[in-house]
Amino acid sequence: MAETPKPSSEHGVGTVAIRWHGNSLELLDQRLLPGEEHWITLEGAVGVAQSIRDMVVRGAPAIGISAAYGVALAARHAGGGDWKAEIKQSIRELAASRPTAVNLFWALQRMEQVFHECHSLDEAVKRLAKEAVTIHQEDLAANFAMADHAVEFMAPDKPISVLTHCNTGALATGGYGTALGVIRRLNEKKLLKEVFADETRPWLQGSRLTAWELTRDGIPVTLNADGAAAAIMARGDVRWVIVGADRITANGDVANKIGTYSLAVLARHHKVGFMVVAPSSTVDMSLASGADIPIEERDGLEVREIRGIRLAPEGVKVFNPVFDVTPASLIDAIVTEKGVVHNPNITGMRALFG
Amino acid sequence: MAETPKPSSEHGVGTVAIRWHGNSLELLDQRLLPGEEHWITLEGAVGVAQSIRDMVVRGAPAIGISAAYGVALAARHAGGGDWKAEIKQSIRELAASRPTAVNLFWALQRMEQVFHECHSLDEAVKRLAKEAVTIHQEDLAANFAMADHAVEFMAPDKPISVLTHCNTGALATGGYGTALGVIRRLNEKKLLKEVFADETRPWLQGSRLTAWELTRDGIPVTLNADGAAAAIMARGDVRWVIVGADRITANGDVANKIGTYSLAVLARHHKVGFMVVAPSSTVDMSLASGADIPIEERDGLEVREIRGIRLAPEGVKVFNPVFDVTPASLIDAIVTEKGVVHNPNITGMRALFG
Repeated sequence: MAETPKPSSEHGVGTVAIRWHGNSLELLDQRLLPGEEHWITLEGAVGVAQSIRDMVVRGAPAIGISAAYGVALAARHAGGGDWKAEIKQSIRELAASRPTAVNLFWALQRMEQVFHECHSLDEAVKRLAKEAVTIHQEDLAANFAMADHAVEFMAPDKPISVLTHCNTGALATGGYGTALGVIRRLNEKKLLKEVFADETRPWLQGSRLTAWELTRDGIPVTLNADGAAAAIMARGDVRWVIVGADRITANGDVANKIGTYSLAVLARHHKVGFMVVAPSSTVDMSLASGADIPIEERDGLEVREIRGIRLAPEGVKVFNPVFDVTPASLIDAIVTEKGVVHNPNITGMRALFG
Repeated sequence: MAETPKPSSEHGVGTVAIRWHGNSLELLDQRLLPGEEHWITLEGAVGVAQSIRDMVVRGAPAIGISAAYGVALAARHAGGGDWKAEIKQSIRELAASRPTAVNLFWALQRMEQVFHECHSLDEAVKRLAKEAVTIHQEDLAANFAMADHAVEFMAPDKPISVLTHCNTGALATGGYGTALGVIRRLNEKKLLKEVFADETRPWLQGSRLTAWELTRDGIPVTLNADGAAAAIMARGDVRWVIVGADRITANGDVANKIGTYSLAVLARHHKVGFMVVAPSSTVDMSLASGADIPIEERDGLEVREIRGIRLAPEGVKVFNPVFDVTPASLIDAIVTEKGVVHNPNITGMRALFG
């Protein structure tokens, strides 16, 4: 039975959050970090869908990979009645778990295509597991390729400081990371002075995950409140803002964690570079622009409370969009494993993504 | 003995956080809101200085008023030895409590001037208490005047939505508020659709104090993570960003709560008005520009933890500046009780503040 892919690289991949055991999937519960490292074992698609919805696992690429394993688990535990209907139902449930990141739908489409080619449950069990592992492996390989492309594109002549938002590292992907992979690569090449990490309210991916991941791996990180990013840029300390993406449209608009758009406006104002790093599975050429991306809103409780401690008056109205859209015009480069789209627009996007 | 000033206005002043009883000062402990309404009774200047340092009381005008009462208490409890030296020492301690808001130094200077005119401790006790109450009363009157000036300046022809940062309300002042006073006045005149309140990390003045204050007073408020402000502006929902100030320099640069500068850049990008509202005691014509303002940095614990719950890896480096500087060029109007400086620069500032 296929197991969690191992990187064939000289680089450390960081602490990964997804472990595949052939007949079960283990997810590191990212809701409990950094206080507790607790793994959740899942044996069926329903549990995987629930884990995506509840953000046990998060990060667009990690969501896609987990969903793929979820389909593999669905096949493994199908049987009894109509195995095809059972797997189809699982795919539907996984697709309904979160709306914004397109990697989820992309991974499920790949799994569904393999599924349609299968003539028996036995074949489906084997081939769907293999496909999920391939998706996982390809994601890791894409992260290494993106890191190469990005560092070559930035070509810093001395160590630079960068600022990042949310978590785009090993925890958010199949390993290594997208934006954080680029930062890892800068560090490996001794071209990194310091990473400023936005704490990233409301879910605090920056303080809970990015700071944890980078501290563990000895990469110099300074945490800041989201509102301090502008002051940091004004000091001239930062050369690039580097972020991930949850969906990229045909014109180069980018949906990413709430607060990303704010950073893009600030970067432009301060003449700081703004780079988006994401695997090509994040690109959705079927959508003309960011206005077409469904933006998830989550419960106001995420803003009103932290770990059950009330921070705001009970019942106060909250606007809690999880993502925002950064227009292509504010982005200097979109980096995927297929290459770099410089000053993205529809022409540049079509050249790389057809 | 003089007591807490009462407003001679038809308008409610909101929930005030400073109560003067002649021989003691009561402060509402703003660290415990919104969960708990606990008042701290202070009978000497040392306790007042500590309360300012620990942010029992915060907000530039409220700090100034509290410090003035602190001097009054110092006089009341002086005696025994050299009463002049004792009061002087108390003024020094109060001045060392926080560095950025100039209202503190302004209020202490006013108190010191009265102190120097006193020929006996008995005279000092009476006159210093009277002066502190006058400072408090004048602050309240200034807030009413600023609200009038600001609404006249904005002259909305229909109800508008605004966005604010930190807390500038009754809790931050002698009552009513500066930026929040303007918002109260818009609401009284039925010209307010909705206030978006940044939660204002790290200290969460927005969720803990502003949302609490506005909810209590029935003013329609929607809370948002600081990172969502840009997305809110992009939706076209907001006509003005209205904030307070901790220090305003001779050229119209403004130091205010960290995150303010970010909002100013975003407002300009979205063609949203940016208004600063503060009493003239916030203006420091002795400083040429914002670069001269000492910016307080506080312990990284404010970012790493909330109420003792760890949000980030232990010991991770944090950059935690409490204030940032917004250049005059990004400000549409500075409103004080003396009038409005439109598109502030050194000429406009000198015309109003000499």
